[in-house]
Amino acid sequence: MLKPGDLVMLVSPQGKRYVRKLRQGETMQTHYGLMGHETILRADYGALVHTHLGHPFRLIKPSLYDLVKKLKRRTQIIYPKEIGYILLKLGVAPGGRVIEAGSGSGALTTALAWFVGDQGRVYTYEQREEFFKLCGENLGWAGLGERVEQFNRNIAEGFLQTDVDAVFLDVRTPWDYLDHAVTALLPGAPMGFLLPTTNQVSTLLSALEKGPFEDVEVLEILLRRYKPVAERLRPDDRMVAHTGFLIFARHEGREHVDESIDPSLSADVLEVES
Amino acid sequence: MLKPGDLVMLVSPQGKRYVRKLRQGETMQTHYGLMGHETILRADYGALVHTHLGHPFRLIKPSLYDLVKKLKRRTQIIYPKEIGYILLKLGVAPGGRVIEAGSGSGALTTALAWFVGDQGRVYTYEQREEFFKLCGENLGWAGLGERVEQFNRNIAEGFLQTDVDAVFLDVRTPWDYLDHAVTALLPGAPMGFLLPTTNQVSTLLSALEKGPFEDVEVLEILLRRYKPVAERLRPDDRMVAHTGFLIFARHEGREHVDESIDPSLSADVLEVES
Amino acid sequence: MLKPGDLVMLVSPQGKRYVRKLRQGETMQTHYGLMGHETILRADYGALVHTHLGHPFRLIKPSLYDLVKKLKRRTQIIYPKEIGYILLKLGVAPGGRVIEAGSGSGALTTALAWFVGDQGRVYTYEQREEFFKLCGENLGWAGLGERVEQFNRNIAEGFLQTDVDAVFLDVRTPWDYLDHAVTALLPGAPMGFLLPTTNQVSTLLSALEKGPFEDVEVLEILLRRYKPVAERLRPDDRMVAHTGFLIFARHEGREHVDESIDPSLSADVLEVES
Amino acid sequence: MLKPGDLVMLVSPQGKRYVRKLRQGETMQTHYGLMGHETILRADYGALVHTHLGHPFRLIKPSLYDLVKKLKRRTQIIYPKEIGYILLKLGVAPGGRVIEAGSGSGALTTALAWFVGDQGRVYTYEQREEFFKLCGENLGWAGLGERVEQFNRNIAEGFLQTDVDAVFLDVRTPWDYLDHAVTALLPGAPMGFLLPTTNQVSTLLSALEKGPFEDVEVLEILLRRYKPVAERLRPDDRMVAHTGFLIFARHEGREHVDESIDPSLSADVLEVES
Repeated sequence: MLKPGDLVMLVSPQGKRYVRKLRQGETMQTHYGLMGHETILRADYGALVHTHLGHPFRLIKPSLYDLVKKLKRRTQIIYPKEIGYILLKLGVAPGGRVIEAGSGSGALTTALAWFVGDQGRVYTYEQREEFFKLCGENLGWAGLGERVEQFNRNIAEGFLQTDVDAVFLDVRTPWDYLDHAVTALLPGAPMGFLLPTTNQVSTLLSALEKGPFEDVEVLEILLRRYKPVAERLRPDDRMVAHTGFLIFARHEGREHVDESIDPSLSADVLEVES
Repeated sequence: MLKPGDLVMLVSPQGKRYVRKLRQGETMQTHYGLMGHETILRADYGALVHTHLGHPFRLIKPSLYDLVKKLKRRTQIIYPKEIGYILLKLGVAPGGRVIEAGSGSGALTTALAWFVGDQGRVYTYEQREEFFKLCGENLGWAGLGERVEQFNRNIAEGFLQTDVDAVFLDVRTPWDYLDHAVTALLPGAPMGFLLPTTNQVSTLLSALEKGPFEDVEVLEILLRRYKPVAERLRPDDRMVAHTGFLIFARHEGREHVDESIDPSLSADVLEVES
Repeated sequence: MLKPGDLVMLVSPQGKRYVRKLRQGETMQTHYGLMGHETILRADYGALVHTHLGHPFRLIKPSLYDLVKKLKRRTQIIYPKEIGYILLKLGVAPGGRVIEAGSGSGALTTALAWFVGDQGRVYTYEQREEFFKLCGENLGWAGLGERVEQFNRNIAEGFLQTDVDAVFLDVRTPWDYLDHAVTALLPGAPMGFLLPTTNQVSTLLSALEKGPFEDVEVLEILLRRYKPVAERLRPDDRMVAHTGFLIFARHEGREHVDESIDPSLSADVLEVES
Repeated sequence: MLKPGDLVMLVSPQGKRYVRKLRQGETMQTHYGLMGHETILRADYGALVHTHLGHPFRLIKPSLYDLVKKLKRRTQIIYPKEIGYILLKLGVAPGGRVIEAGSGSGALTTALAWFVGDQGRVYTYEQREEFFKLCGENLGWAGLGERVEQFNRNIAEGFLQTDVDAVFLDVRTPWDYLDHAVTALLPGAPMGFLLPTTNQVSTLLSALEKGPFEDVEVLEILLRRYKPVAERLRPDDRMVAHTGFLIFARHEGREHVDESIDPSLSADVLEVES
């Protein structure tokens, strides 16, 4: 049931993971030997597939979490604990259209592309050539490149889209681009931000306090892991204590409907009011 | 551009939110007066729409977060902070097929239905008639009912689906249903669990330690909000300290491919091994 | 073995706590009846002492924690989780001398007085008459008044002590009083601060960055309680998420010894250097 | 003003700390050269004292925090964040008498000895010879040995003291020694425990649920540090996520006063009851 173009994960006997897009004629190289994609294509999910040296690898369908963990990264990436919450707050949905800046290593880009599906669209902006390319490579590797339009561009010049469902800014001075974000957004649609320092959060809040923004929310997400041992259950000794602060807001919209009274209601309807 | 069937959110002057599915001829009742759906259908997102008493409501496209917050609930619901992470770990994707038990008030069901899209499918099991109905009402209200199949059934009898992409169990004794979950899952696909006490986590880990499970992970997610005031930024005084422990695992799969050597590789290919 | 002047705690059948300083001839009034201090003086710790209506109260020696919890408060108090850490960082010890401002309800004052002992001294400054009095009442109630000197005074005028072992400032603009604190401190001795907002922390750090301060530390302490049930162990649903940020620093000292070479070392000693 | 026997801290130009007990005729060896204790004795706190090679060291009076950080350790030690809270809960005070087991590296022993003062007494039990010795060395180094009695003994044989103000057990199976602790304690006095796993906490709670214990409390303390930079204030990237769970309880006492009515109250007093 596997077919060329499918994304698979192969787990080595020691737990090392390889994510690959299946292509006829290709060969995966591992420290335990070689494995032809043809061989993988004949196997089923959950099966053990052997390298030419006889080492068994488990064949698994990767989750988004698996993909994000295996991305090539040269920046601090946004963690899955933040990504999941961002998705809910931004209203990302299959078929949706979302703007993101900067692309960085493409971790959030990958997640957005995953969830907007084949009918959706992610527009990602990155000024630094190096990360523009890295994000593109990661998206290609994850098989999600067709859902994404990349722009190697300074967002000070504005965004090229309008009426998008959400904008996420992971840039150093997001307060400089609020107007551009509002122009690109569907009126009233959500904006999100990631910022590492409290000083930046304060500066962004100052900017948001000026404009007509609402639903302003500042938060951080902490993930605490446990050693998964039934008889000695306890939290890990150490944990990630800070990725960044998440900020969300909605622009109140610029245009108003000027009907002061709803004309569709007749007098008798008014009587049912509870 | 709005059309009947669209889900909209209307925000009152005091910030109270109303989520509605637009239907011709219907009227929304609020404490500030009535508003005909026809009137809303003529407005644009971001606009102010007025009740028959002249009060302005902001018209917004709701995010998944907005929906989950407005669900009718008669149980402890799974919070957005957990939902987002669950989605990533379970590999939920547009077009995916997922099993969940129990449905509860349908908060996670709503999120799963949102992200599997029109091509996907959520199968949700709930033994208690009361919650079976409540979940159905909430899904209908959110306009997501068509993506979900509900089962008013004890999962001790097993699941009715096979080869699903993920199973999530939010039940009191999930260790009793591991075999059923494995049978329903695509081999190697992820399972997730939510449990409130450390004793339950230990019991589940004992069960997972017996079977061939891997990628076993125990964690909790903490969300800390800040007062969003630029000049006096500080965390909220109090926070939710515990929703539950999240546990994830993958069954290693039952069947093995018996090729001890990859036959697709010729001798000369072997030489390229790095 | 109890004697007049001893501080005791009496726990009602429902767990309500009464802390009292024993005085001959006095009577404690409770919702369960009266109890003469003479009766208490004849009992032993751990005993049940009955009111005139026959209700049994457990007689206990109160801990500092018990005292702090029972203080009359009209301000946000410093919590035990912070107090303990402050004590260690400030080097508070039996016989020590410590300055604190402002006194507030006297929670930290009580703790400092407790630990400096009969030979030590706490100097507490409070500008607001209301809290100056409240702090005094609380210290008297806790039987610790003799170890404390209270000053109803604006610290902008400086402190009246010198060579104290530590200074703790729980005031709105501590950066205005750094010089006064340094003047009062034993050279190199520790200073501590409690501040609620990140903006205040940044302002204080700016001031500390100017002067010759070292060991600058910013932190917060979170206390998470569990429901103490053996079979259903789990964190409490909610917790205190923020009391304040703790900041500590040491002034580097103003005077230098001008001996560039240690004269007490003879040449042959130098050879043993490791 | 410094005198032989005083404990001092010397901070190198690079911030390395040396804690020493001053003794006439001794010499401190550092990577920056030698420093005679005579030279230190002539200096004042806050001063720069130079090694024979001319490197300046800052002379400081160490806090308890400084001492605990510099102890030689060969075990997981109890952290200052826990120590402070333990002190408050156990009611440790100048002049108090406290039992602790096991001694471990002596971090909590040091803190207890610090706060009971010259009139108080710490009884510390340690079965393992290695740690018995290490604890003794650390106490001697910190100049606190005279306040402590060490026992190289299995606590299964019971404690040798009675009517102590508090007992703290940092041992693997504290539930085995509850009776011994109760026997040693002043009736109604507090007991504390440190345990790393949730399973141990549950087992201890089971034991406490049987006896007449009250004020049972389970908690953990998290300390989150910030990078102390005014313009870029943010939490550290990583933190200690788990040291252990703290548990506290009070034994209800065994003996009862059998007066069902308080005899010291005359009829007219009864009328004043509020």
